[in-house]
Amino acid sequence: MHLLLFSNSRSPDGSYLTHAREPLRALAGERRKTLFVPFAGVTTSWDDYTANVGKSLAPLGLELTGAHTVDAGAADRYDLILVGGGNTFQLVAECRRRGWLQAIAQRVRAGTPYSGWSAGANLACPTLCTTNDMPIVDPGGFDALGLIGFQINPHYTNALPAGHQGETRNDRIAEFLVANPAATVVGLPEGDWLAGDGKRMTFHGPHAGYVFRHGQAPVELRDGMAVDQAALPNPR
Amino acid sequence: MHLLLFSNSRSPDGSYLTHAREPLRALAGERRKTLFVPFAGVTTSWDDYTANVGKSLAPLGLELTGAHTVDAGAADRYDLILVGGGNTFQLVAECRRRGWLQAIAQRVRAGTPYSGWSAGANLACPTLCTTNDMPIVDPGGFDALGLIGFQINPHYTNALPAGHQGETRNDRIAEFLVANPAATVVGLPEGDWLAGDGKRMTFHGPHAGYVFRHGQAPVELRDGMAVDQAALPNPR
Repeated sequence: MHLLLFSNSRSPDGSYLTHAREPLRALAGERRKTLFVPFAGVTTSWDDYTANVGKSLAPLGLELTGAHTVDAGAADRYDLILVGGGNTFQLVAECRRRGWLQAIAQRVRAGTPYSGWSAGANLACPTLCTTNDMPIVDPGGFDALGLIGFQINPHYTNALPAGHQGETRNDRIAEFLVANPAATVVGLPEGDWLAGDGKRMTFHGPHAGYVFRHGQAPVELRDGMAVDQAALPNPR
Repeated sequence: MHLLLFSNSRSPDGSYLTHAREPLRALAGERRKTLFVPFAGVTTSWDDYTANVGKSLAPLGLELTGAHTVDAGAADRYDLILVGGGNTFQLVAECRRRGWLQAIAQRVRAGTPYSGWSAGANLACPTLCTTNDMPIVDPGGFDALGLIGFQINPHYTNALPAGHQGETRNDRIAEFLVANPAATVVGLPEGDWLAGDGKRMTFHGPHAGYVFRHGQAPVELRDGMAVDQAALPNPR
């Protein structure tokens, strides 16, 4: 498999997907026929979402088709799959309802490169259980594509607004690991991404990430580190 | 019905449930036999959770029984129901699996007073869809008790940690309202609560809350205002 999973779409300078262009160019190679999955978009139309992503990625020369305009049976027409961010619950609900969950997993396992950001990175995980999104619709099951063996928490930060008494992100991830003690979670800060073949995934980007496991201290991830390297039991 | 729904458990001074004592005393009246529902607790044991709540509410003289220690068939032994905060998904999953969803709804509709905070306030809503919690387990359906006709967003704030590019709370609520355009959401800031009979609910507490409806500007709620008053179409 060929996977490229971004924490988020906004680059540190506020521009849209610009930090994703060079990694996406490397992933795409000579491929142009691109399936764009816009179903996580809630407050913009899927047509507009597809057009905006196409505009931002224009330097790569990709030809984007929105998954809302074609049948999942046509998945083999495309040789690159991009999944945009938004609401993970709606993304999974629509992909499931339209047959895209199975169709995408099959194509990606057969070699079609996959990239997603935010909800699109969550979709590559075994389940949607480490999304930050509000559960605005029932996704009909929490299982996702399962292209990687661990969970991603996108937009990772442990900060809270001043004075707020809700759970921190680390509290939430710790709760997930109590309920799912065999799981591994990678906290992926904004601006960072993971790349690899699904078995071996490498961490990239400007901010340190963390690997979380039940009963262990979080292990720091730095640019260029493999997730499995960092996920070795903490010597402390 | 007699409902008392708190945003959260921590009082503004950081102490546990102290801001809830006087409203709870008024709700309980002479009632002592209390069912405490601890299933939202993830990182503390349900025994400990029940004991801690009992300790904090000791001045009220309530006799707490943890719902994990009895069968849902025994619901009619109790004349007050308290539901603690934590993870809403686990709360709904455990209540559903053990038969408490039906048993509690039936008792409360028959007149047993109900109070809950955070996840326990979400449980009183039609669905869990406006929780802030991470979906750590599949609740087997997003429906909840439906004791009130609108959704509560507990721990309401629209602040983000500095530099963070994820959705604000208002963005999330707007997404929910696009997916559920007939719904009403009350953003309930920490320290605030709603009290009433289910049909008429009154807002209380030190911080302004907001009523959110699809396509309308948020309407402010102040101490003593009825939610339906505030939910009238905004004249702007």
